[in-house]
Amino acid sequence: MYRFQDVARPAATAAKHFVGTPAMRMASSLCPGEYSAPSVETSIPGPKSKKLLAELSQIQPSGSVQLFADYNKSLGNYLVDVDGNVMLDVYTQISSMPLGYNHPDMLKALECDENKKAVVNRPALGVFPGADWPEKLRNTLMSVAPKGMDSLTTMMCGSCSNENAYKNMFMKYQRDKRGGTSDFTDLEKESCMINMPPGAPKLSILSFKGAFHGRTLGVLSTTHSKYVHKLDVPAFDWPIARFPVYKYPLHENLRENEQEDERCLAEVEELIEKWEKKGNPVAGIVVEPIQSEGGDNHASPCFFQHLQKIAKKYNAGFLIDEVQTGGGPTGKMWCHEHFDLETSPDIVTFSKKMQTGGYYLKSEFLPDMPYRVFNTWMGDPTKIVLLDAILKVIKRENLLSVVEKSGDILMSGLRELEAEFPALINSTRGRGTFITFDAADTKLREDIVNRLLTKGVQSGGCGVVGIRMRPALIFQPHHAHMFLDRLRQVLAETK
Amino acid sequence: MYRFQDVARPAATAAKHFVGTPAMRMASSLCPGEYSAPSVETSIPGPKSKKLLAELSQIQPSGSVQLFADYNKSLGNYLVDVDGNVMLDVYTQISSMPLGYNHPDMLKALECDENKKAVVNRPALGVFPGADWPEKLRNTLMSVAPKGMDSLTTMMCGSCSNENAYKNMFMKYQRDKRGGTSDFTDLEKESCMINMPPGAPKLSILSFKGAFHGRTLGVLSTTHSKYVHKLDVPAFDWPIARFPVYKYPLHENLRENEQEDERCLAEVEELIEKWEKKGNPVAGIVVEPIQSEGGDNHASPCFFQHLQKIAKKYNAGFLIDEVQTGGGPTGKMWCHEHFDLETSPDIVTFSKKMQTGGYYLKSEFLPDMPYRVFNTWMGDPTKIVLLDAILKVIKRENLLSVVEKSGDILMSGLRELEAEFPALINSTRGRGTFITFDAADTKLREDIVNRLLTKGVQSGGCGVVGIRMRPALIFQPHHAHMFLDRLRQVLAETK
Repeated sequence: MYRFQDVARPAATAAKHFVGTPAMRMASSLCPGEYSAPSVETSIPGPKSKKLLAELSQIQPSGSVQLFADYNKSLGNYLVDVDGNVMLDVYTQISSMPLGYNHPDMLKALECDENKKAVVNRPALGVFPGADWPEKLRNTLMSVAPKGMDSLTTMMCGSCSNENAYKNMFMKYQRDKRGGTSDFTDLEKESCMINMPPGAPKLSILSFKGAFHGRTLGVLSTTHSKYVHKLDVPAFDWPIARFPVYKYPLHENLRENEQEDERCLAEVEELIEKWEKKGNPVAGIVVEPIQSEGGDNHASPCFFQHLQKIAKKYNAGFLIDEVQTGGGPTGKMWCHEHFDLETSPDIVTFSKKMQTGGYYLKSEFLPDMPYRVFNTWMGDPTKIVLLDAILKVIKRENLLSVVEKSGDILMSGLRELEAEFPALINSTRGRGTFITFDAADTKLREDIVNRLLTKGVQSGGCGVVGIRMRPALIFQPHHAHMFLDRLRQVLAETK
Repeated sequence: MYRFQDVARPAATAAKHFVGTPAMRMASSLCPGEYSAPSVETSIPGPKSKKLLAELSQIQPSGSVQLFADYNKSLGNYLVDVDGNVMLDVYTQISSMPLGYNHPDMLKALECDENKKAVVNRPALGVFPGADWPEKLRNTLMSVAPKGMDSLTTMMCGSCSNENAYKNMFMKYQRDKRGGTSDFTDLEKESCMINMPPGAPKLSILSFKGAFHGRTLGVLSTTHSKYVHKLDVPAFDWPIARFPVYKYPLHENLRENEQEDERCLAEVEELIEKWEKKGNPVAGIVVEPIQSEGGDNHASPCFFQHLQKIAKKYNAGFLIDEVQTGGGPTGKMWCHEHFDLETSPDIVTFSKKMQTGGYYLKSEFLPDMPYRVFNTWMGDPTKIVLLDAILKVIKRENLLSVVEKSGDILMSGLRELEAEFPALINSTRGRGTFITFDAADTKLREDIVNRLLTKGVQSGGCGVVGIRMRPALIFQPHHAHMFLDRLRQVLAETK
């Protein structure tokens, strides 16, 4: 029933890039003056980081802090820490630095008086936007809007974007139930004020096991990647479907993975019907195009195409959460563009590389009345100033094609390393440079990440055994070769 | 039982300021080059605003937009719109501009290379903070921490601050139930992943009618100011107590208002016991020191003192939400400092005037493990750069005393106007310049706000009949006189 498609460019096509000409290997940096290679002077965290950590711990919970960075010296793909260690950064602040560090175009944007004033005069954008706001939105966020998405809501972070997008779906669902009007009854107006139906109705959002959509209470009820995020926090009783778990390598497991899609999609329908019967109907489906925090779990374009059809069948909103995948790292501006969907999703949320949070939506998902989705700031013009500089560089330097090239090199190089060290790493998967490979177990994963660091490579884990690549869009083929070289050293030294 | 205290400086004390010496009236502006008076050239919104509104409506829902501002020309207490209208702004972007527009010290902060780099290199602060982060926090947020509050979590906005602070309270409550340890059972770890108890326990937050704590799904269950915020959105079944509704003028209704305190506090205890019996115990109480969006509803220091005692009695966290009141507008850095509480609150959340969201907390409310309260950015160093400039100006110019002086003038002037126009306005209340008065009805309120605008005063409504003053901290006595003069004209012209 569901034709399975490979979720990544096959190794064969990619391999030709990996051979690489000397010219490619010597390619000049897209960030002038960038370091030529990592250099590690101390253990990481080094003594200066440790001293600062002791200071910070007096003020803030700091158990997650890895090192203190020197953001004056960091440049391009290289993160420099306070102990003078220069690291090739393939993690980039949890995937949120599209142009790496101190990109000259971003710094230049802050030379301009008007942009400085945009930083200082932060308006309540929903009430008193600045004169240039419509034009700025057209030139930035709307210029890269997914096809077919005609409206935009700006927010400040990924969690707030998803939280408010869920509200758009709830409001749309209830408006449809009222026959398209917003004539609220007195009972609805009164009951919602005390958190009770019919005004505060029982409605649910369907999400997937392994998903991550944020940590505030609404979206946390749709996050299922790690217990540490959720334990002790009350949650809504909302349905959770299995996300496909594929066998790798994909081309050897086509039939089995197709069946996995079928099973998961059947479960989605079962859950929607079950929750409808429970009196807690599904108003929306939320899904990541690649489950990122959950371990870079991919699903086939067919899976997403059919999921969209199911959402339509039950009049549930179809929200694709591109907070981590959006902004170019998969080689397209939006990862869901790889899926060849019948129509655009109903809502696409973003944050991270886009600097500002927010979401695109189809206009039928807009509330009928003002102040239904609203807050003091509704985003931040400072971030649009930065995004403007970023999008100009993406276009001028054709960075999406850089992502493709570097991604091909990483993908085929990692597959070669899989073949060379089959007991250590496996299941390389990805799109563009948004790539993960698995270590044989969690302990080895931690070990590889730590030893990469001693060789000057800052990477990060995801899921239980994944090591994820989240480099900047200016991560070039020569950086990819450097990464593969350091990883090979680490694997070769593994006892 | 509960001794009632007046929530505002009595008119008698304030009156002496209102008389004002010529010197005071002519006081030079705290923002050099500020306009000397409002000037209105067109209807507001004017033709240029209307044209931009048509443009913006193509991209964003814009029903709440009042005008388009010219942030290059706005200065100090004056908001200038694209049609050239110069307005005295007593609303200041929903109370979020402590130094008004284009303050030279804030602009100067962006001249510095290091600060520009802080804007451009936005780190994941929970993992890779910059070298200066501990010092910056000490010099800014920690330098104005409420007494007795030794820890800090930075966030991006008020909603996220409250959402995460609730999580701190839930985690503390469950840890106490476990006897102070974080030894989670396998059942807890597994059940939380599917949103079920015991891992995702039934726990509640007690809030008050008329409260506003944000619009994401968790905090929205504690927001009860307007139905338009809540309708169609599912909510948690959490207890909602009555917030005192006082009779004004306060000094004529002491006994009655004391009884109101007693009734409301008794209801809090009843609800806590009821929810305990329902198996959904109260892990925390959230309250605004002044219910702002709900209509500037004040409660006496006694009310808050006893509320804190009740929280302690039931081992519920005591969270004071200072998102709108914090940062100086009440004449103290934190409004709850007016309440003479026995000990500090457990958690104090902030945003708006503080530029960054976040919360102070007692260290016993910190989670035991990292990544329990976490997100990609954990705040934004850009906002700390701005806050640093702001706090230096507050100190240098002694702005809290300016707030007191201007507040006294507003308060006594408004009471004089109440006496002159008793059929039109009443119930003036406030602390510092954080002042509201009520119109006789909602229609008149809208009418007064609109006609103030035609005279060049940008104010705002709150609650059902309130007109709220939320000027900048640089709002000086001469601005207060100007406001009172324009308001008197409006009232005198009211048919």
